[in-house]
Amino acid sequence: MSAEELRLLIEQMRGGPLDFEADPAAIRETFDGMLATFPVEEGITFQDVSLGGVPTVQSTEPGADLGRTLLYFHGGAYVAGSPTGYRALWSRVASAAGVRGVAPAYRLAPEHPFPAAVDDAVAAYRALLEEGVEPGGLAVAGDSAGGGLAMALLLAARDQGLPLPSSLTLLSPWVDLTCTGASMETRAAADPSLTPAGLRQRAGDYLAGQDAGHPLASPLRADLRGLPPMLIHVGTAEVLLDDAIRLAARGAECDVRASLEIWPSLVHVFAAFSFALGEGREAISHCGSFIRSHFSK
Amino acid sequence: MSAEELRLLIEQMRGGPLDFEADPAAIRETFDGMLATFPVEEGITFQDVSLGGVPTVQSTEPGADLGRTLLYFHGGAYVAGSPTGYRALWSRVASAAGVRGVAPAYRLAPEHPFPAAVDDAVAAYRALLEEGVEPGGLAVAGDSAGGGLAMALLLAARDQGLPLPSSLTLLSPWVDLTCTGASMETRAAADPSLTPAGLRQRAGDYLAGQDAGHPLASPLRADLRGLPPMLIHVGTAEVLLDDAIRLAARGAECDVRASLEIWPSLVHVFAAFSFALGEGREAISHCGSFIRSHFSK
Repeated sequence: MSAEELRLLIEQMRGGPLDFEADPAAIRETFDGMLATFPVEEGITFQDVSLGGVPTVQSTEPGADLGRTLLYFHGGAYVAGSPTGYRALWSRVASAAGVRGVAPAYRLAPEHPFPAAVDDAVAAYRALLEEGVEPGGLAVAGDSAGGGLAMALLLAARDQGLPLPSSLTLLSPWVDLTCTGASMETRAAADPSLTPAGLRQRAGDYLAGQDAGHPLASPLRADLRGLPPMLIHVGTAEVLLDDAIRLAARGAECDVRASLEIWPSLVHVFAAFSFALGEGREAISHCGSFIRSHFSK
Repeated sequence: MSAEELRLLIEQMRGGPLDFEADPAAIRETFDGMLATFPVEEGITFQDVSLGGVPTVQSTEPGADLGRTLLYFHGGAYVAGSPTGYRALWSRVASAAGVRGVAPAYRLAPEHPFPAAVDDAVAAYRALLEEGVEPGGLAVAGDSAGGGLAMALLLAARDQGLPLPSSLTLLSPWVDLTCTGASMETRAAADPSLTPAGLRQRAGDYLAGQDAGHPLASPLRADLRGLPPMLIHVGTAEVLLDDAIRLAARGAECDVRASLEIWPSLVHVFAAFSFALGEGREAISHCGSFIRSHFSK
């Protein structure tokens, strides 16, 4: 446990300008500004592509298996974040899995409320299948709101009769837009980045009056039957801790193979801080092993 | 998913003579008889030893790191099972971790009710420390009732000020002797080996009138702070499914590092059937990797 690394990180987060209770425009500026400082791993290169009409950033590195793909959805509470801002994170996950990464710039709220993001995710997914990517060589992942979106994509794909990917990797997923987990209260003081009030505001932006219990908005409420194996990472210094625990329990109810890893004292999407945090590097390594182990042989 | 292997196994279990609602003497006979047929992995040898006065079976194999030890507690609902009966299982886990295994023959109920088993576990653990085994090179594990006992040992060791082992591995642990998990009902029809009535009878034998909510009898109710990283495996065809899920959640509440792996359609302590079941071999391999990764370097 790199306790000193973690203490410094939490101090920086508490002192930083990021405030998920602010105006979406302000969140976007401070959030993407912060993320842009995160160093990309050496040897990874990026390219702008398009998937089903959705602007997308692709990562590759020498030696990556181009026949296999990680489709990744960034976080940002459905109102902020971008594939470019998050590229240090998702390209590391793709690199750990030894594959190319693709991260769609799905449309954000409040300008584009639910289900615009889900529609974009499905369009990107369909485009990958149409490109000839084999479902057994395709993995889906996401963090925070992007984790909820990744789940919504798989539920929509299942219900549309599309083949499903080989696995689903979720980092601190936000899967309950009603924000009813006990950790919304019990971990509020411990969480240096998110607040229940901020999440409720952003859920309001995304839902624009629609039902927070809709299974594609809150996949925790969905029937998960038929979903591929999922890996869920969460820290205990997160108001979203119980989203992860309840999602694993929901997976069990629906006979989905689920691995839940609970990391004490760790913060929301701590894998994003892998450049400064040993546990972040370990988490990304676990994600890579999990994704590789579920690709069809 | 080796669906055919699993179907055959469940059919055999349903047709078999094992009945955890029977008399303890009858359970011991059919249970140890069944287990004795499970093939031991080639190259592993066994030796009778004693740990703190508790008769113990030790496993070694060529190449095992003798400086590192897996202390394993077998299942059997606190009334049946033995280190020899279970040796095919625990010696495989030790082998996957690359270390020697030691499995104490802790005293069984109803002849020796709670806390006799915990006392024996603590005596064996103290003896290992006194032998000079480094806590960082010591892992503890158990299945079913042995999982609950392994947890009780760590709680007792913590409260007695003993150094704790490097990790705790639990296969389908029974950690709630009040038997209140929802899966006691929702998975009763799916579980081919255990019944809520059988578990309640055996809890009665073990408790002999003592409180089922005692933290060393039902570690789910305990304060888990300070425990080492734990790995929990469970199948969804188990009345004990919710013991595992609630234990991971309890670990999160207490800031314990916890990995929960939920295996759809798999049965109670399915790793015991690794000779016939691909998922059993995969589970044992995961246990071995987990244990090795937490030994001090």
